[in-house]
This record gives sequence, C-alpha cells and structure tokens, in this order.
Amino acid sequence: MRTSRYTLSTLKEAPADAEVASHQLLIRGGFIRKLASGLYNWMPIGTRVLHKVMAIVRDEMDRIGGQEVLMPVIQPAELWEESGRWQKYDEGQLLKFLDRHQREFCFGPTHEEVITDLARGELKSHKQLPATYYQIQTKFRDETRPRFGLLRAREFMMKDAYSFHLDQSSLDATYQDMHGAYTRILERVNVDFRPVQADSGSIGGNASMEFHVLAESGEDAIAFSDESDYAANAEMAEAIAPASDTAPPGTLSEVSTPDAGTIEDVCTLLGISADETLKTLIMKGAETPLVALVLRGDHQGNSIKIARLVELAQPPTLASDEEIRQAIGCGTGSIGPVGLEMPVIVDRTAAACANFVCGANRDGFHYTNANWLRDANWLRVEDLRDVVPGDPSPDGKGTLQFARGIEVGHIFQLGDVYTRAMNATVLDDSGKARVMTMGCYGIGVSRLVAAIIEQHHDDKGMIWPASVAPFRVIIIPINAHKSDAVRECSEGLYADLTAQGIEVLLDDRDSARPGVKFADAELIGVPHRIVIGDRGLKNGQVEYMDRRTGEAVDLAVDEVLERVST
Amino acid sequence: MRTSRYTLSTLKEAPADAEVASHQLLIRGGFIRKLASGLYNWMPIGTRVLHKVMAIVRDEMDRIGGQEVLMPVIQPAELWEESGRWQKYDEGQLLKFLDRHQREFCFGPTHEEVITDLARGELKSHKQLPATYYQIQTKFRDETRPRFGLLRAREFMMKDAYSFHLDQSSLDATYQDMHGAYTRILERVNVDFRPVQADSGSIGGNASMEFHVLAESGEDAIAFSDESDYAANAEMAEAIAPASDTAPPGTLSEVSTPDAGTIEDVCTLLGISADETLKTLIMKGAETPLVALVLRGDHQGNSIKIARLVELAQPPTLASDEEIRQAIGCGTGSIGPVGLEMPVIVDRTAAACANFVCGANRDGFHYTNANWLRDANWLRVEDLRDVVPGDPSPDGKGTLQFARGIEVGHIFQLGDVYTRAMNATVLDDSGKARVMTMGCYGIGVSRLVAAIIEQHHDDKGMIWPASVAPFRVIIIPINAHKSDAVRECSEGLYADLTAQGIEVLLDDRDSARPGVKFADAELIGVPHRIVIGDRGLKNGQVEYMDRRTGEAVDLAVDEVLERVST
Repeated sequence: MRTSRYTLSTLKEAPADAEVASHQLLIRGGFIRKLASGLYNWMPIGTRVLHKVMAIVRDEMDRIGGQEVLMPVIQPAELWEESGRWQKYDEGQLLKFLDRHQREFCFGPTHEEVITDLARGELKSHKQLPATYYQIQTKFRDETRPRFGLLRAREFMMKDAYSFHLDQSSLDATYQDMHGAYTRILERVNVDFRPVQADSGSIGGNASMEFHVLAESGEDAIAFSDESDYAANAEMAEAIAPASDTAPPGTLSEVSTPDAGTIEDVCTLLGISADETLKTLIMKGAETPLVALVLRGDHQGNSIKIARLVELAQPPTLASDEEIRQAIGCGTGSIGPVGLEMPVIVDRTAAACANFVCGANRDGFHYTNANWLRDANWLRVEDLRDVVPGDPSPDGKGTLQFARGIEVGHIFQLGDVYTRAMNATVLDDSGKARVMTMGCYGIGVSRLVAAIIEQHHDDKGMIWPASVAPFRVIIIPINAHKSDAVRECSEGLYADLTAQGIEVLLDDRDSARPGVKFADAELIGVPHRIVIGDRGLKNGQVEYMDRRTGEAVDLAVDEVLERVST
Repeated sequence: MRTSRYTLSTLKEAPADAEVASHQLLIRGGFIRKLASGLYNWMPIGTRVLHKVMAIVRDEMDRIGGQEVLMPVIQPAELWEESGRWQKYDEGQLLKFLDRHQREFCFGPTHEEVITDLARGELKSHKQLPATYYQIQTKFRDETRPRFGLLRAREFMMKDAYSFHLDQSSLDATYQDMHGAYTRILERVNVDFRPVQADSGSIGGNASMEFHVLAESGEDAIAFSDESDYAANAEMAEAIAPASDTAPPGTLSEVSTPDAGTIEDVCTLLGISADETLKTLIMKGAETPLVALVLRGDHQGNSIKIARLVELAQPPTLASDEEIRQAIGCGTGSIGPVGLEMPVIVDRTAAACANFVCGANRDGFHYTNANWLRDANWLRVEDLRDVVPGDPSPDGKGTLQFARGIEVGHIFQLGDVYTRAMNATVLDDSGKARVMTMGCYGIGVSRLVAAIIEQHHDDKGMIWPASVAPFRVIIIPINAHKSDAVRECSEGLYADLTAQGIEVLLDDRDSARPGVKFADAELIGVPHRIVIGDRGLKNGQVEYMDRRTGEAVDLAVDEVLERVST
C-alpha cells in the first residue's frame, strides 16, 4: 500500500475525552474515528488490525471444532420473554424497538436465546452432540456512560460461542478446549494475561472464568498469587480462614465511647488499630426479621459472598436505622455481637479474633476484650469479605497481590438455565428426551484491539505485535522526488517484499517532510522501518529500525527481506 | 469436516412460505433458518458460502484500490437531517429509535451520510483524491413484506463502497473500475448477468447501472438487445423514434362513438386495432393549469420519463375528471389533441402516426383520419412510454427482448448530492475549497448467494460453482462400520485431500443409509462426489460423480486428487 493512495489520518493531539492510551493512540493514529458517543468508524488501517484479530480468533475456534454461524443482529422479543430476560436484562442496556408492524424486537447484545432456539430445532439426537457454534458479529449495548474508546463502546465486535451437551462431563471437556483456545488466542496477539475465576453474574450458571489483559487502565481488580497461577476477579477471590488467635482471654469490659460512631473514631479514642475491632452489619432476614453479619473492623463486606447467604432477604438489604433502634435499642455505630438476639453470621477472619473491641448495643459504649463463644455466639462462620493484598492465596501457595485487568474474554458453564427455560431437548440413547447442558464463550474482539495497545505502546505511539500489525514493514524514502536512486530502490524493495507476501506500507508522500514520516511510522507502530536515502545508498545500504527496541542499524538492501521476515 | 461432528440439517420438505427455488433449497439444505419475518440465521454450511462470496467481493474491491473500513450499524439522526433524508427515506424502511438518553438514531440501511461525514473530516487536499472506501456489513431495511428468503430479507449482508473525487473525470474512472470489478465478481461466482442502465431513484444523482442476475424469479424486468450488449431496466429503456408513417392523409371525420370510454371500446366499435389510435392524458401543469400527453393507444406511459417533463407539476398528477370537464367540456374517454387548447407533448411513436383515431373533445365522438400538423399541433415530441418487446434497440443493433433479473449490484454516480448538502470540500491545487464529487456502489452479498442458486440448481438440489461451494468434495463411505477397507480408504482420502487444501466433507454418519447420504449430497450441491464401497475397492476403484452433469465414472483411488482439483 502507498500512503499517496491510502487514507492515513494521523493527528498531533488526542481529543480531550480520550483518557487512556489506547483511545488516544487509536484516534491519533487514524485507526478509528468517533461517530457518536460510544460509536466508532474503523478507518482503513484500523480495519486491517481488526481483521487480523478476527482471523486469529476464527482460526482457534475452528481448531477446536467450532462451527461458524451468523445470527441476525435483530432479535424478536418472544425468545427473550421465553428465557425470562426481556424485562430483567442488565437495566436498560437492551435496546428495544418496534418494527413497522408494531412487533417488539431488540438489537442483540448477546445470542443465548437465538442459539438455543436454533439448537432445539436442529439438534434432535445425542449423536449430534457435543456441538459448538460461534459467530463474529456486531453487538450493541446501550451503556449509560460509554468511555475509553473501544474499551467500553456501545457498538462493538464480539466473538460469541455456544456449546450444547448431553452431560456435564462433555461440557467440561469443551470448556477446557475453550480455555485452551482463549489461551492460544491471547498468546498469538502477544498480550500478558491471566485467566481468572469470575462471578457468572446475570447470565446465570456455574463455572465461569474471565480472561484479563493486565493493564493499569483496566476497570477490574484482579487478585493473584505471587507464587502460583491462582488468579481471581478480586471480588470473587476467597478469603481463607486464618489460624485462630490463641491469646488468653482478657476480662470483658464495657467502656464509654461517646460520639464514636465509626471504627476510626473508636480506634482513635481507645488507641487501637482497626484489626483489633469487629464491626456488625444488620441485614433484613429471610426467615427472621433481622440477621447480623460480623467482620473485622478493617475489612469490607463482599456483596457477592453476602448475596449467597440463604438467611438474608434477597436482594440483600441493610436494616434501617429505625429498625435497628427498635430491635436493639441503639444506633448503627454501637452494635456488636455480644448478647445480640438474632442469627449472627461471622466472617472467617473475624471469627479468628480474640480479645476484640465491638459495640455494646448501647449508644456510646463498646466492649473490650470480647471473645467468641465465651461472650458471643454465632450461627455460622462464612467467608464474607473482600480479599486484601497480603492475604494468603486460597490455593495455599504464596500471598495475594492485586493488579488491574481488562476483561477481553469470558467462558461460562451455563448448565441448563436457557435450555430448560426454552425446552431444548435431545433424545438420549434410550430414546428419552433430555434437556441439553450448555456453555457460552465470548471474546470482545474490538476491545482486545484496544487492550493490545494498552500493553504495547510508548510515548511515541503504538508498537504492534507482528501477528496483528496493520503492516509488517514501512518504507520511508528520503527525497525520492529528487533522487532516482532512492525512488528506484524504494519501489524495488516495495515490489520485492510485497511479492513475498509481506504487507508493506510505502510512504511515498512527496508533500510530507521526513520528520513527519518518521513520527507517523512510530505513531502507527509498524514493527519494521526501512529508511532509504542517497547517503546510505552510496554504500548500498538502507537504515533498518526495530519499532520495539528503537535500535537502528545499516543493512545491505539484500539483507532486508531476512530481517523483516522474523 | 465430518458430518458426525457437523450440523447438517437437511429437510425433505420446504416450508410453505418458500416460493422460489433459492428460498426452498437454502432451507431444505440447512444453509439458513428463519428466525422471524425477513430475519435468517446462517447455519454452518451456509456461512461457508457467505464467506466465500464475501472473500471474492473483498478481493476485487482491494484490486481496484478500495480501502476497507467498518462503519457503525447504528447512526445518529443528525447526519440524516443534514442530508435531508431523515424524513423522506423510502417510506418507513428506515428503522428509527431512541437511545437511553432519548437521542434519535437509526439502524443504517446505507451509509452515504456517515461516509460523507468521515470524508469531510479526513480528506482535506485534492492530493488525497480519489479515495474509495468500502465495507461488508449487516444492513437492515424494514420491508413491508419480506419474501423470497434471502432475496428480500429485512436484515441482509451488503458490500457498500463510496468514492470521492475532485472532478467528474476522476469519478468516471472509478465508476469504470467498479464496473470492471462487479463484472469480475459475477464472473467468479459463475452467474449469467447483465449490467443494465437504471434509474438512480431516491438516492439522487446521475449515471447509474444495475447488475442483474438473470432468473425467472427476478423481481425486475430487463429489456435487452438480441444483437448487442445493450441492456436496461425495462422502465428505463429508451423508446427510439420510428420513421414517420408516410401514408397520404385521409379526410378528418368526426364519428359517433357512444359509450366508448376506453381504447378497447373504440377499437371494437370501429373495427380497428389499438395501434391505429392515440390516447391523451391530461396532467396538472407547472406553468399552465393543464398539459396534455399523447401516446399511441397500445402503449403505456412511463412514470420516470414523464416525471422529467418540466412542463408538469411535480410530482406528476393526473387532472381530475372535474378539471377536465371544466377545461375541455368532455369526459376522459373522449379527449384528443385536435383543437386542444393547452401545451401538448407527444410521444415519439405517437408523433410518427398518420390517419389516427383520437377523441374529439366531445362526449361520444372520436375523429378518424386525424393527422399531426394539419389537424393538431404539439409543443414537443418526447420519449414518454414504456418499451415493449420488438421495439428497436436504442443502440441501433437488433430489437429488444425482455427478461427477468435479480438486482445484485448497483453503481451510482452521485455527483455532489451529499457532499454539497454536508459541505464536504477539499482544497484544490490553487488552495480553493471545492465540493467533492462522489460515487456509491453496492452489492447485496446475501442476495447474491440466493441468486447463484436461482441459476444453479436442479430438481435434486443446489449445484454450487466451485468458487463458492461450501465444500469441494464429499466422500460417502458405504457401510464403513462393517468394512475396514472402506473406512481406511475413506479416512486416507479425506486426509490426503485435506492436506492439499481441498475442503472435504466426509459423510461418516453410521446412522444414515446410503440413499439418504446421496440425497443430502445432491441437495447441498457439493461439486464432486466420491462413493467408496467394498465392491469397487476390490478393483482399487471408487465412484466419482460430477454434481453438474450427474455423470458417474469409476476412478482409481490415486486419480481422485487430479479429478477434483479442476
């Protein structure tokens, strides 16, 4: 490709709303252009990268026996009503509309309903299972606040796959195949990533794993072990039970803590640290009016773990100040487990504490030297809190560290959530109808393009891995309009490399100064740069520069092909 | 691919709503499945064909310097308001909706506005021109009555391209390049087609050509010469002026024609044929209250040609019976050009008539032996009528025949319709801002898949051209579960051909009888069929059948590769 015949729209400045590197560089490099909030045009050079990522995804899906399909973007409401998601899908992200005949449709953000409908029509016998279908397609989610360019757009490109099985062991096998395929995809686009345990969220189901590209700009916190490959979405990581504090129990004392409404106040007043205190949350109960949750004073309750407690009303709801005062006789800042007349569920770490400080269930008073069993009873001990850096890794190896990640992939074991709701059955070998078991597997293809940049850039621009680079080589002739030798060498090398199947961008713009061409080449991140000028050609040489290292060397013209082929 | 691991969903019967061959066979062969009215899932085998057609289109677009982009499916209303199409686009086919912030958007049926917005932002200098962009993307048009499967779906796959130029000669050059590319695309998918002159319709602009695949199920009538490559959309074909009738003028006579309100009545009454009569239409005028149009009695007025007459009110409107009676003093069945006091515009063929019969502008009377100039005057002679079979070809070679066509492509010279409305300018070489000139070029990719089938099928099923066949070869082992030799030969051939890059479907279903496999192979239209059975293997032979000819021959196993490679 020649820049004289190619729309290379580089910009000196990024737009004010571009906060992260990938957004800034995609705009500055002319890879994308904003059409409206969360909607982007892919420019020619960006489309090349998008297609390369798509091809890698397709290749790895095919390798594990995925069958490519293409389902409509537009989906009828009936199927979503059948699955029960028409009303409850992600608070308004589902874009609904009426067609000209006043029938309800949506712009598909995902295709579980459509594929399950297809599968129940086409899959009749267990002999057709397992079956895995995938598509690469435009999706739309009407985000409240689209931001970070391609990382959180409204319209985006996604690979979504769905598998159907007779039983769990078959689902497990395909789930593992997908894990392998996702790993290879992310290795092929050369990103540092972690597969992390995840919450399966509103989509329902069982096992679930997210694939995160590590990047400071990531929206998700990941907890990972410093000594093993354990990693989990931080909100999902298990906080394991520490050994109990074996200090001899002191004497329970009630102390006056006037105006101390928070853990911090109490610590200041008593000259202790937060990990010597316990805090108590009063929640609405399922069977009893109220339920108490007890955590160590320096820890945060974890909403996902708390939501799993069957003793709580769903969704979990804090009791009001008024309900608390009526039941316990004090304000929220003075509650504690000692003598509390309701079910008490204690976090593992809180349960290991001895001689702790806690509210005395009387305004303005706390207990010191409180101890479990002697002074307070629990119904159960559970993992209720967020993990924190330094917690032991749940796999017993090392301690937890935190990192930020960009979720680019997600694999789920859906089980029979959709297949049961939509009655998708096959006949087993005894001729009996059995509801199929199902998995689903997504990759944010356009988001992955941005995530690659988050890991591969410097202050001059993008640094594309060879597998997804828009061009492998850029040739910059110096003053070609004044030098036949430069022009001939540039054109010759362009023709030779192109003939070898190497994608070359020849910057033949007469109007641009060399400095502008160098800056553009670095901004768009082409891995190999060849500069051709009269000075070098006198010795039969051109200048080669590796974009990643920035190192430049002089090469004989006939050495170029070998150098850029690796 | 193995049928045991591949969803091959063939059906014995086509659904009741499938009227045309492509719709019936795409459903029966399991290439597509209906999701809702005008919405189809592409099944694995159909997706393979779709991708092959897309690859050919992409290849030919790249060859002429097209730059691939990808624009959002969702488009903001503002751009459509700027072009003036938000209100007037194709009577409700534009699917509009509000996002969660109550801003207006549409699901893009075409992308002139978005690309023009992009071009005015990125193209600044004439040095960047010409520039051609294309995308292959899902489109939606909310058809009143979707039908014929992929031929008139609501959601469909389209290649749309747009070019920008400084001047007409540059647009002409790209338009010719596109003509060549479209020709090569249709040749590569092996269809019999005609490029035909077309009306540029609501999209506006100048030169325009449609590419029609000839098929009886086509919705469009095409007029073409039996002796040259002239072809036009029938409604656009020019009716050229015949030589004038040189018969000596007879005596003008007024004859009584009571109750003869139509041409047919008059002919019956007077014992003449319709081509001896003229009929007169009274239209509302632009400058005068009324304007008369005169056609030969057996011809139909052509609405496109009539709409071009500057003398008429726009849009062209017939005068009411009341207006006619008030101005002329008779009913519509008795009007004629003799003595008519308003501008008279005469069709070329009507103008060549002599001694014609026409209304006498008096209820119940006609003239016979009327002649132009002597008895009636005209303002102008124009081409006003539809062509009919047997008309001379406008290029002077042969006579016109009619055929039905499926429009699969359309190339337009838009001129400055959009670029002027949206102020898309570049600086010319004198530094002056100039509005760009624009072309647009579409191919209905999914429609083309159906059109190929309309031309390539028989009563047993589809007959895919090799370039777009889902598989090149199908191998059918006979009783493989009982014969090691059959199984080994089948597996060996499958491995060998696959290693050569040939796409093979191995029908390894143990459960299906040979007859079922043969029928499926013919239905899905794989070009080359290899049947492997014990009987043939005794002589080292397999059976080869060409799907198109239906001819079967015995081949040595090592002859198969060569046979299926062509």
